[in-house]
Amino acid sequence: MTDKPIIDFDLDENITVKDLLAKLKDSGFQAQQIGRAADVIRAMKKAKAKVFLSFTSNIAASGLRGLIAQLIKEGLVNVISTSSGTIDEDFIKSNKPYLQGSFDEEKDTELGKKGINRMGNVYVPNDRYTYLEDEMPKILEKAYAQKKTWLPSELIKFVGENMKEDSNSILWQAAKNNVPIFCPALTDGAFGMQLMFFQQKHQDFEVSIVKDFKNIIDQAANAEKTAGIILGGATPKHHAIIANLMREGFDYCIYVKTSSPYTGSLSGATTSEAKSWGKVNENAKAVTVHSDVTIVFPLLAAVMLEK
Amino acid sequence: MTDKPIIDFDLDENITVKDLLAKLKDSGFQAQQIGRAADVIRAMKKAKAKVFLSFTSNIAASGLRGLIAQLIKEGLVNVISTSSGTIDEDFIKSNKPYLQGSFDEEKDTELGKKGINRMGNVYVPNDRYTYLEDEMPKILEKAYAQKKTWLPSELIKFVGENMKEDSNSILWQAAKNNVPIFCPALTDGAFGMQLMFFQQKHQDFEVSIVKDFKNIIDQAANAEKTAGIILGGATPKHHAIIANLMREGFDYCIYVKTSSPYTGSLSGATTSEAKSWGKVNENAKAVTVHSDVTIVFPLLAAVMLEK
Amino acid sequence: MTDKPIIDFDLDENITVKDLLAKLKDSGFQAQQIGRAADVIRAMKKAKAKVFLSFTSNIAASGLRGLIAQLIKEGLVNVISTSSGTIDEDFIKSNKPYLQGSFDEEKDTELGKKGINRMGNVYVPNDRYTYLEDEMPKILEKAYAQKKTWLPSELIKFVGENMKEDSNSILWQAAKNNVPIFCPALTDGAFGMQLMFFQQKHQDFEVSIVKDFKNIIDQAANAEKTAGIILGGATPKHHAIIANLMREGFDYCIYVKTSSPYTGSLSGATTSEAKSWGKVNENAKAVTVHSDVTIVFPLLAAVMLEK
Amino acid sequence: MTDKPIIDFDLDENITVKDLLAKLKDSGFQAQQIGRAADVIRAMKKAKAKVFLSFTSNIAASGLRGLIAQLIKEGLVNVISTSSGTIDEDFIKSNKPYLQGSFDEEKDTELGKKGINRMGNVYVPNDRYTYLEDEMPKILEKAYAQKKTWLPSELIKFVGENMKEDSNSILWQAAKNNVPIFCPALTDGAFGMQLMFFQQKHQDFEVSIVKDFKNIIDQAANAEKTAGIILGGATPKHHAIIANLMREGFDYCIYVKTSSPYTGSLSGATTSEAKSWGKVNENAKAVTVHSDVTIVFPLLAAVMLEK
Repeated sequence: MTDKPIIDFDLDENITVKDLLAKLKDSGFQAQQIGRAADVIRAMKKAKAKVFLSFTSNIAASGLRGLIAQLIKEGLVNVISTSSGTIDEDFIKSNKPYLQGSFDEEKDTELGKKGINRMGNVYVPNDRYTYLEDEMPKILEKAYAQKKTWLPSELIKFVGENMKEDSNSILWQAAKNNVPIFCPALTDGAFGMQLMFFQQKHQDFEVSIVKDFKNIIDQAANAEKTAGIILGGATPKHHAIIANLMREGFDYCIYVKTSSPYTGSLSGATTSEAKSWGKVNENAKAVTVHSDVTIVFPLLAAVMLEK
Repeated sequence: MTDKPIIDFDLDENITVKDLLAKLKDSGFQAQQIGRAADVIRAMKKAKAKVFLSFTSNIAASGLRGLIAQLIKEGLVNVISTSSGTIDEDFIKSNKPYLQGSFDEEKDTELGKKGINRMGNVYVPNDRYTYLEDEMPKILEKAYAQKKTWLPSELIKFVGENMKEDSNSILWQAAKNNVPIFCPALTDGAFGMQLMFFQQKHQDFEVSIVKDFKNIIDQAANAEKTAGIILGGATPKHHAIIANLMREGFDYCIYVKTSSPYTGSLSGATTSEAKSWGKVNENAKAVTVHSDVTIVFPLLAAVMLEK
Repeated sequence: MTDKPIIDFDLDENITVKDLLAKLKDSGFQAQQIGRAADVIRAMKKAKAKVFLSFTSNIAASGLRGLIAQLIKEGLVNVISTSSGTIDEDFIKSNKPYLQGSFDEEKDTELGKKGINRMGNVYVPNDRYTYLEDEMPKILEKAYAQKKTWLPSELIKFVGENMKEDSNSILWQAAKNNVPIFCPALTDGAFGMQLMFFQQKHQDFEVSIVKDFKNIIDQAANAEKTAGIILGGATPKHHAIIANLMREGFDYCIYVKTSSPYTGSLSGATTSEAKSWGKVNENAKAVTVHSDVTIVFPLLAAVMLEK
Repeated sequence: MTDKPIIDFDLDENITVKDLLAKLKDSGFQAQQIGRAADVIRAMKKAKAKVFLSFTSNIAASGLRGLIAQLIKEGLVNVISTSSGTIDEDFIKSNKPYLQGSFDEEKDTELGKKGINRMGNVYVPNDRYTYLEDEMPKILEKAYAQKKTWLPSELIKFVGENMKEDSNSILWQAAKNNVPIFCPALTDGAFGMQLMFFQQKHQDFEVSIVKDFKNIIDQAANAEKTAGIILGGATPKHHAIIANLMREGFDYCIYVKTSSPYTGSLSGATTSEAKSWGKVNENAKAVTVHSDVTIVFPLLAAVMLEK
């Protein structure tokens, strides 16, 4: 318990994000949480902690794709854990954008008939997938020419190296800046479909996953200090966390998420719960922001970008 | 359906809130929603719509108390609908602040033993209520000297006029700037306790509510255009909405909330659902931001403050 | 901490609700919570605690209207706290049912054009309100003939006494069985509209609220033990709780709700948080079930009905 | 739109789950959803659809482990998609149970010091993992003796065949009844740790994943009709869905989940959204129940068990 007061604040229309966060920190509820998260980021940067970033593929479908690419480019993210869909969204968007849609203005069956796939309020026309279906086999051919068995992180890097140059691409920037992207369930998406079709023609082509688990654990084991920036839940969250379990947990950690801690799911679990497991170190600076990633993370990313 | 693309964005550490919102608008998911909400605010300002602001009392407990006071002072809010707890929090905080606490670092029974009441991650020590218990009866005496029967909006204004000068106070600024505050369930809080104790001594003291409903409806009926900024749910939300029902709904409307639309509660209902009722006009510019008020509203308030 | 194991269970297709709850109790997550809630109900019944039931008006719009009427009739509920909309839904449904609809199969603006008001997946055709608009003024005339100033609980009882006989009606059963219904924000709904229209014609007609707050507090103060069954949030929840604050909180308490505890709202607050305030006694048997009321409460009501 | 009325209902204390569901169906909100889900189950059974069940590992930690084992044994589930943690929980619980705990009664750092890992209100003492760490290497040795490279579904079946006999075990029943369990991110858990340690000693041991994606797609492709029972979200949900995408979606589908559809995550997506993608067929009988799996699924499982 502290004696720090809640401070009523006012605003100037030209306020910067940085100044706003300083006000929010003393404000209460999730504002207080995001303010503390900004402090965790400053502390992790000061300690030169190795930064593990996890996010689900919807984030790559949103405009945050560019922001994450920027953070990679600036050297502010060191290890990425994500889901297979990120490869789909990232690769497709290097060619053509997704569209702004609506959560509830059109009937889903009508959208389906028009060839529009709805992802919340983001619309993905069917033609977007054509690009992936046309281009990915060529990249896989090149990969196969090099070797038959790939780890997910190797293959993701290879895609990043062989796709169109795109400074807003997560895969392209990660490949260029040697930031490994881990994704054990690599088959679980449109990219996975291409892997499967490719294997139909090349039976000895395979993706194996055990060594890659060693690789992400080594990333954590070899670091003096580690930090987790965990956006959303699911396998990307768990994989970043478990990689840090053997080193007694993250030294700095931020969860940003909306799912409930009351279902017992890992997606809903808080940094507090994580301390009971040692997933987050008991002495870590850690905070859970219970709010939407697409709004919260840009605010925090501005803090990551501070010189 | 539009052809507007989702645009990947990057950031500068010194970015202003205004510039960030412009980027979020093209980003997807709740970022897109908050970006659209910023546009609704600009449109409602341009149309000089009368602004109805609703919020629950936890907002007055947070630092947003100062922000709402500022918006009142700047003439950007015209009618307020809130719950009785707002009087408690606003009045008490004019004397002494609440404290920064934690959602889960201390056991609630331990906090109780220390005389700390927990409101999320905001701590309210017992002594805070002493001020209200000491001072409010004096204000009620003054009110009673004027007349025996009060409407909620009249009595709230009277409290605002007779409390300590405090530019961060919602009640004080509303009284000074003639912004009516509506609250039919006026008894439902610590202030209500004082009303009850006062009536024990003065049997003919009463608060009556029917005329005040006419008053808030007239506020809506007499306006050329109305806008609703609806933060959170509960009675404050419904009361602002129903006041606009007879005029065929808000012309501009923003809901910011986290509760689920799937329980059928009014708190969880969206602006889309509201259009089926005519609570929000079918042609209104309206958007629901499904996210935390204490983070989202400061961002939108910066837009309200634009000159 | 206990040593009670989580027990894997199997089912028989003809299992009773009672037997299912016994299995759920040892199962984990919200199943465990509902199982504990069943135990709280059995303990509160054994202790002959006075039962305060709170619910929001959507519950009266659902089929739970009949269930609550049954519990009143069986003497299992002693005091009710609800929102004004309950009067609307309960009165209208004594004449004609609401309809089964869908959350997302029709566009809300289309529904509006057809005269359908959507409440989640419940549809309320416009004609339903005609009955209330036609009949309620007659009841108000009768009330006005008795006296000019009414408390909410008195007027709600009067409506119950003067409406169509309907054993599934909450108001009708409550009036018949002398169960008071408290609702300070009585004006906040379609019934409130009728109060306002009526007052236009009869300026001395009024609803006053301070004495009714004393009445609900007395209900709690005079009881040896009290129990709270708190369904959903908003003013109904807070009003039931605050009535028990002065007696040092409920001795038995169940919250059933889906809203998040992380916004600091009273709607989202847990029974644990309530113990820091003394809203729920520190020694109370209390549990929060984080799940949907329309599924959870029927299961628990079966326990209330145990002989 | 239908003309089906919402029907007020009452209860008998000895009501069966089956009879309760019939009442809930006409009740509104999530009760209505679960009632419709029961109908979807009856239709899918009548059509003899192949049933894909997905769930996250917390479900195996709860008492639903026994229920899922029963459904497998009864031939009511044909294909399973889950996360790696299910192997951990299922295997460990065949030896020793997890414990009933609390969401908020103990501080997480204190629990950690006592060697208790908290999963919501389920406690997992550290010693539970010892069993997995001792026994799993022996099973992996046996597997390795058979062949060097394994698919996830093969290895999970092998574990099921070689673990202790336990009729409440998902793995044991699935192996015995030839129900394949798919899990591409097989490394992501304590079992994955054992895979990694084992590979340190046996460099040519590997788990490869592309052929297994073909296997789950074939499960869907070869079926006349398919049904999805999708509990919770994350990779298990997506993997079951994507396997059915190429056959133009599930013919019958139920989602049970609490996460929000407004973040754009796959976990939060509804069956309606799925129809825009063809993940659920546009003509499918499909429903989303927005509520807690540990309460909702036992109710629905009773319907699955109907003769």
